[in-house]
Amino acid sequence: MIHSRAPIICLLILTFALEAYGQKFPVSEAILEQYTKASFPMLRELYSIPNDAFYLEDIEKNVQWCESSFSKRGFKTSRIETKRAPLLLAERDYGKKKTVLVYLQLDGQPVDSTRWFQEHPFKPALKRKGDNGLWEEIPWESIQNYEDDWRIFVRAASDAKGPVGMFLTAMDIAEKEGIEPNYNLKIIMDFEEEMGSPNLPEAVKKNKDLLKADMLIIFDGPRHITNRPTLTFGARGIATIQLTTYGPLVAQHSGHFGNYAPNPALRLSKLLASMKDDEGRVTIPGFYDGVSISSEVEKILKAVPDNEAQIKDRLQIAETDQVGSYYQEAIQYPSLNIRGMQSAWIDEEVRTIIPAWARAEIDIRLVKETDPERLISLVKNHIQDQGYLVLDSVPRKGQRLTNSKIATFQHEISYQSFRTDFDSDVGLWLRRALKKTFGEEPIMIRMSGGSIPISPFVTTLDIPAVTVPTVNRDNNQHSPNENIRLGNYRDGIKTMVAILNEKL
Amino acid sequence: MIHSRAPIICLLILTFALEAYGQKFPVSEAILEQYTKASFPMLRELYSIPNDAFYLEDIEKNVQWCESSFSKRGFKTSRIETKRAPLLLAERDYGKKKTVLVYLQLDGQPVDSTRWFQEHPFKPALKRKGDNGLWEEIPWESIQNYEDDWRIFVRAASDAKGPVGMFLTAMDIAEKEGIEPNYNLKIIMDFEEEMGSPNLPEAVKKNKDLLKADMLIIFDGPRHITNRPTLTFGARGIATIQLTTYGPLVAQHSGHFGNYAPNPALRLSKLLASMKDDEGRVTIPGFYDGVSISSEVEKILKAVPDNEAQIKDRLQIAETDQVGSYYQEAIQYPSLNIRGMQSAWIDEEVRTIIPAWARAEIDIRLVKETDPERLISLVKNHIQDQGYLVLDSVPRKGQRLTNSKIATFQHEISYQSFRTDFDSDVGLWLRRALKKTFGEEPIMIRMSGGSIPISPFVTTLDIPAVTVPTVNRDNNQHSPNENIRLGNYRDGIKTMVAILNEKL
Repeated sequence: MIHSRAPIICLLILTFALEAYGQKFPVSEAILEQYTKASFPMLRELYSIPNDAFYLEDIEKNVQWCESSFSKRGFKTSRIETKRAPLLLAERDYGKKKTVLVYLQLDGQPVDSTRWFQEHPFKPALKRKGDNGLWEEIPWESIQNYEDDWRIFVRAASDAKGPVGMFLTAMDIAEKEGIEPNYNLKIIMDFEEEMGSPNLPEAVKKNKDLLKADMLIIFDGPRHITNRPTLTFGARGIATIQLTTYGPLVAQHSGHFGNYAPNPALRLSKLLASMKDDEGRVTIPGFYDGVSISSEVEKILKAVPDNEAQIKDRLQIAETDQVGSYYQEAIQYPSLNIRGMQSAWIDEEVRTIIPAWARAEIDIRLVKETDPERLISLVKNHIQDQGYLVLDSVPRKGQRLTNSKIATFQHEISYQSFRTDFDSDVGLWLRRALKKTFGEEPIMIRMSGGSIPISPFVTTLDIPAVTVPTVNRDNNQHSPNENIRLGNYRDGIKTMVAILNEKL
Repeated sequence: MIHSRAPIICLLILTFALEAYGQKFPVSEAILEQYTKASFPMLRELYSIPNDAFYLEDIEKNVQWCESSFSKRGFKTSRIETKRAPLLLAERDYGKKKTVLVYLQLDGQPVDSTRWFQEHPFKPALKRKGDNGLWEEIPWESIQNYEDDWRIFVRAASDAKGPVGMFLTAMDIAEKEGIEPNYNLKIIMDFEEEMGSPNLPEAVKKNKDLLKADMLIIFDGPRHITNRPTLTFGARGIATIQLTTYGPLVAQHSGHFGNYAPNPALRLSKLLASMKDDEGRVTIPGFYDGVSISSEVEKILKAVPDNEAQIKDRLQIAETDQVGSYYQEAIQYPSLNIRGMQSAWIDEEVRTIIPAWARAEIDIRLVKETDPERLISLVKNHIQDQGYLVLDSVPRKGQRLTNSKIATFQHEISYQSFRTDFDSDVGLWLRRALKKTFGEEPIMIRMSGGSIPISPFVTTLDIPAVTVPTVNRDNNQHSPNENIRLGNYRDGIKTMVAILNEKL
């Protein structure tokens, strides 16, 4: 008797185990491949729309493209108007109890086409690495026989139109292969992310009910450098400073006035040099106050399989800055970075003048423990301590004639940092989906160095957020020759299908 | 008897005195005015030819214009070919014993049309100061009723097509009003001056006989700031340095790598800051060695009626650099000036990256006492002393991976300084011509701060040189909105007629 009931019990146990474990990846690799290839014309179309948020006319084209693409896929779209570019909300109500808010970003960093090795930054170029180690362009049509290491080069390839293409393709698979999420979907699309999403906080406040959800997932950013499946539980915030110093009212001939009229580039250099030491540590007292790494946190940070020798080799740097003693530690601290600097002209445009002004663009990455206003004040006070009259506008003649050192200091706090617990509902759910799909626990990042404008959601809507990064880390994000690795594009689709399929 | 011969003796004395004194200004103010006005169409035509020496096609148009304009006025022209733009020589042999070489410059500094307040930097704009103190454009035709304080705004207005126009007009007056110099003329025209006349030294060496002359006069540069007639007996030389520092191989996202990848703009700032003190004095030991101001020289320098309060007011600076304790003293020393600086982008083009490199363009103004090679070495050694591997080209991967601080240092010594005695033949002759014409001794400048590529003539041809400046000092030379004051244009013609008329 006992023997005869054994198979049934085993079957019951197995069924129960499968149920508890959740659904395995619901489509075959062949089907995934087929949908991936079928999506390339859509992706190319999306990439070809210029998306520098400075140009609202171009942004409108992106908004319309999204309206059309999400409507086609059964979403109800509505614009959330702001002072500038709108946000776009796409809702799909499956009649479930819970709702997941998904954040996508459509705009890209500005382009300088002279630095791109292709016809145009907004014309997608398919490239493979030649025998000489250089990227060579191949006909777009070859993409139907793509290899994982081939890439598409175009502005926003990875940051972040790539994930938009992945998500739309995952929706197609779900629709046609009979996968239904057990939660409702709200997709919020941002068209001013690279500008720091200046209008997002107010829009979220004004539309709390419309955006109401149980959790937020963000499809943005690169996977861990090992390119293994990754989840990111926090991100640094960002504030920016524009600092301008002054020389003669208008540029002067450097012969006639060299040794006489003060040089604003020297002034600026001295100010910037006074802010950090040779190892890249901010020397302004109090800048790192409040941040401490417990032994528990240290364990989590050290579990990330960073290969720092490889990073250094790729960046071709002999030594790193010494804010932390390893990469994950460095990211837990606020940063102060000169992201741009200019005074007069260089190279073939150079002229022999004493410039009238010099300007530095600075970004400060924020962490949860630091008050942005406090950091900004520290920097501002430091400049005053160097003998400067610090103004928030261009100095007037009277000010210029009575103060030998004047700086214009303008700042903006774009958004704060956020950090979600590893064992939150959203965290556990996503870890499950990825583990089942890729057969291993994802790499878990406590804090991403980069910033995403998530704090309005986290604070105003009071929901936890986790980022699901998909793209290759060496994508030249924010730089010329941005790209996406096609293997990552397909894996991204796979990841999103897994999340749509995973019971919440 | 005695009485009766007195008138004759007086007449003889008077005649002798007049002879000794030389010829007074040979034409009336009305005639001068008439020729000045008649010259404006020619001047406008000359100004309208783009003349950035970077564009050889444009330069060729300037060369042809000069060939035609000088041929028309009885000169024999010939091109002196170089590796790049030619020099043009225009000779007029009056069958006299002595020959005066005249140096003219035709090319202009590069233009950034976005910073000019007119249709185009190469389209001459006639402007007068409005009641609001701003320059307002008026129809070109109004120039026939010009007032002295009106100006023409155009690239090379003052530096140095203005003097070319003056000289051609002075030649017209000489020709038609019967003035013949008692010396032969050789006019040498330079079309690459703003590039540092890289091909001039060799061309002078190769054409020593062709250029043979007794003295050199240079029609270039602005008068003393009082706008009184001025002669300049020397000029600083110039050498340039381009300095580049490195961060990650390609620009990196400042979030992902802020606190980790070294920032090249910080590196550059620290280097530049280490070269000079807050008062603009070079802190590299030995930089000012060899320069000393004797009490006799000090007397000459202090005789120049500089109004430093006015200079400061115009430049809108509270304090000047402290290399010298007054303007003329400052100019006797070599200078080290940051003439341009850039890393990544600013303003609307800013992006949140750690830049891949930062670059400073430096010019060093040379004086007679300083060996340019020595100064360059001092700066280079200083950078090495800050822990840098200093290269003359872009670093290779192996170098980048083994040296945390790398700088690319490229330099060029354009030309040396020169200085002529106040009591040389050429000096006395020009002082005479100006004194008689303007009724006062000209202001005599020992050294001009700016550089002119005269050392090849002075050293290779072994002739003394004096500069005759004519244009207004506030001409925005080398900057956007360059201009010439029309009163200075007419006075410049007058000066040149006086020199053509003055017996050598």
